[in-house]
Amino acid sequence: MLSGKVLVAQGGGPTAVINQSMVGAVLESRKFAHITKVYGAIHGVEGIMNEDFIDLTQETTNNLEYVAKTPSSALLSTRVKPDAAYCNELFKVMKAHDIRYFFYIGGNDSSETLRLLNENAAISKYDFRAIHIPKTIDNDLVENDHTPGYGSAARFIASAFVGVNLDNRAMGGVYIGVVMGRHAGFLTAASSIAQKYPDDGPHLIYLPERVFDLDDFIKDVDRIYKKLGRCVIAVSEGIVDKNHEPFLKSLMGGELAKDDHGNVQLSDNSLLGDTLADAIKKRLNISRVRSDTFGYLQRSFIGCVSDTDAREAREVGEKAAQYAMWNDADGSIVIKRTGYYSVDYNFVPLERIAGKTRLMPDDYINSKGNGVTDEFKYFVRPLLGSGFQDAHYLRATMAPKLLK
Amino acid sequence: MLSGKVLVAQGGGPTAVINQSMVGAVLESRKFAHITKVYGAIHGVEGIMNEDFIDLTQETTNNLEYVAKTPSSALLSTRVKPDAAYCNELFKVMKAHDIRYFFYIGGNDSSETLRLLNENAAISKYDFRAIHIPKTIDNDLVENDHTPGYGSAARFIASAFVGVNLDNRAMGGVYIGVVMGRHAGFLTAASSIAQKYPDDGPHLIYLPERVFDLDDFIKDVDRIYKKLGRCVIAVSEGIVDKNHEPFLKSLMGGELAKDDHGNVQLSDNSLLGDTLADAIKKRLNISRVRSDTFGYLQRSFIGCVSDTDAREAREVGEKAAQYAMWNDADGSIVIKRTGYYSVDYNFVPLERIAGKTRLMPDDYINSKGNGVTDEFKYFVRPLLGSGFQDAHYLRATMAPKLLK
Repeated sequence: MLSGKVLVAQGGGPTAVINQSMVGAVLESRKFAHITKVYGAIHGVEGIMNEDFIDLTQETTNNLEYVAKTPSSALLSTRVKPDAAYCNELFKVMKAHDIRYFFYIGGNDSSETLRLLNENAAISKYDFRAIHIPKTIDNDLVENDHTPGYGSAARFIASAFVGVNLDNRAMGGVYIGVVMGRHAGFLTAASSIAQKYPDDGPHLIYLPERVFDLDDFIKDVDRIYKKLGRCVIAVSEGIVDKNHEPFLKSLMGGELAKDDHGNVQLSDNSLLGDTLADAIKKRLNISRVRSDTFGYLQRSFIGCVSDTDAREAREVGEKAAQYAMWNDADGSIVIKRTGYYSVDYNFVPLERIAGKTRLMPDDYINSKGNGVTDEFKYFVRPLLGSGFQDAHYLRATMAPKLLK
Repeated sequence: MLSGKVLVAQGGGPTAVINQSMVGAVLESRKFAHITKVYGAIHGVEGIMNEDFIDLTQETTNNLEYVAKTPSSALLSTRVKPDAAYCNELFKVMKAHDIRYFFYIGGNDSSETLRLLNENAAISKYDFRAIHIPKTIDNDLVENDHTPGYGSAARFIASAFVGVNLDNRAMGGVYIGVVMGRHAGFLTAASSIAQKYPDDGPHLIYLPERVFDLDDFIKDVDRIYKKLGRCVIAVSEGIVDKNHEPFLKSLMGGELAKDDHGNVQLSDNSLLGDTLADAIKKRLNISRVRSDTFGYLQRSFIGCVSDTDAREAREVGEKAAQYAMWNDADGSIVIKRTGYYSVDYNFVPLERIAGKTRLMPDDYINSKGNGVTDEFKYFVRPLLGSGFQDAHYLRATMAPKLLK
């Protein structure tokens, strides 16, 4: 085993359980006698660059357990994506601090960063282990059955749609909820868990994996509204037009703001929902049409955590430390489903994760591209965790009319 | 006691616990031998007009208990506000069905409807009891310490702001959350419960009870952002300009959509948040500014219910039946706070509730009008119920820098 320091960092957007992974890696690392210190980098790679390290060897186990239950990156995060030159600089810092194990909790971008860092280590002949711990609410990492963070976000979306379906059932009209997911529709698809009684919404679900056609959309809404007198719709922020360009892009005249990774920023924009609502109002002459863009609530809401997700997030953190120490290898922890419902954790080379995006498989999407299949519901249900509350309706008989 | 039927109906926007009140009134009414049937009106007064009654005497107690735990009006709702002519028609239906007790669960508008109905009953010399059961997430009913529905919505808002504060702490920038509340700021003010550590947001809270000045707002944000490098803001949808007109109205060139009650529709509009975000971006040159309009999630989200709120909502329903039967009187049930924390229920004449709006008292709002006082926090905390989760941060010492 390599003697020296462990460094843990968190990158990208937060999740409700990202601190479970951090605490899992920290507590497991602290057990090994050859580990001299366990550091946390404040604000991800930016913290490494600036030597902003918190000494987690001097944090109480008790407080770490409380932090584990707190949503959103306790080590704070970053959107910086290092290039080779940036990685060289990171390396000087890591060498100076005798950091031998680097655990980076993040999504696609983070695993790519790790792969670059590791190439640098090889060139420098510096003994170094780079380990990727998966997290993303989008569930878009390849090799994984699902990713830590997804289950809790899916629980939030399912809970939200149980509520808005009940609201829409009581008040009537059309409701559109716009859900996060740039390329993969997994999170939007979780809205389907709200479908309990036969007339429950979401009645229509639109995902980035299928071309979104405004005319077909209007026809779909018209059909549901004529049948039920109401309609609940789940739309992914990342839906695309027939040229596979973001639908939102054409709405904004081809110009979309981008973040530091060159990713188009969709989540802070209510334009998509508002535009779809306006189209329904005008073309179907329905007066009560409402649209909500769920925004930042869906990834860090406190008190809506899947216990399954929390447990797995903890375990990928622990397994990261174990694989790094006992196997003396680089790689990414991945979740494999082994039963219904059970999982185990594998360790795969970083190259198999980095820079790739997993999409919804075809058999999870219905043939019309406006809903999901039972296969998907069977897949997602255990990830929401225990104690998920569903809705109950009155079933008493109607009283006879006397005047009409 | 008047022998005949009981009728229960729900009006206005749904809450998370409105069915607790319905089930409380139904189960208590079913105990009385002189009550021949317990009906529920489907879609409020519209259901009465159409004789759409569900016979709740033929609903299982077990299913009623499940329905009680389900958010949003199980009897479905209405925005119709009856005038005197409409009430005359309602009356013919009630007489035909031998309805002697009418329990209407709703806010301001519902209590006004009841008062009108009752006047009609007096003129018709028809023995009739009209009882108002309070509910509103806005907490804007006079005579009440607080209203059923508010505690759960406040819990949602507090939970949301714990999450977005953590998110903003990790990612930086400015975040604006727009919260429901047309005239009263109680719901927006509940965001203050997220303030745990000294630098926690929301750092600024704007309520409809104080004039909103855009220049002062920009100065406030600038000050916080310069100090902390981030800023979390809670804004009520109902903030007003110096002429006490909705701030949103001036943004929309003086034209705002109205609902059937003549109330301005604010909640489905992301314009306010987007406009404030744009103003910050341009005038303070801050690139990462995000805005979410919480919309319909905040009043019917499942799995975010205050147990205190649920218990009280049940009890106002039960007490309504008891007051009606044992006191043989019309009126509204009101919640009185008797200790910290305990409540009791009074029965007041309908005229004392109807058509009046309760606002935040001055001692709940800070002197600058951009935050709340500890008095408010002390008031609201028990209403959120038990098991409210708070955030925990790392407290370990920073490691020494070696290179800088």
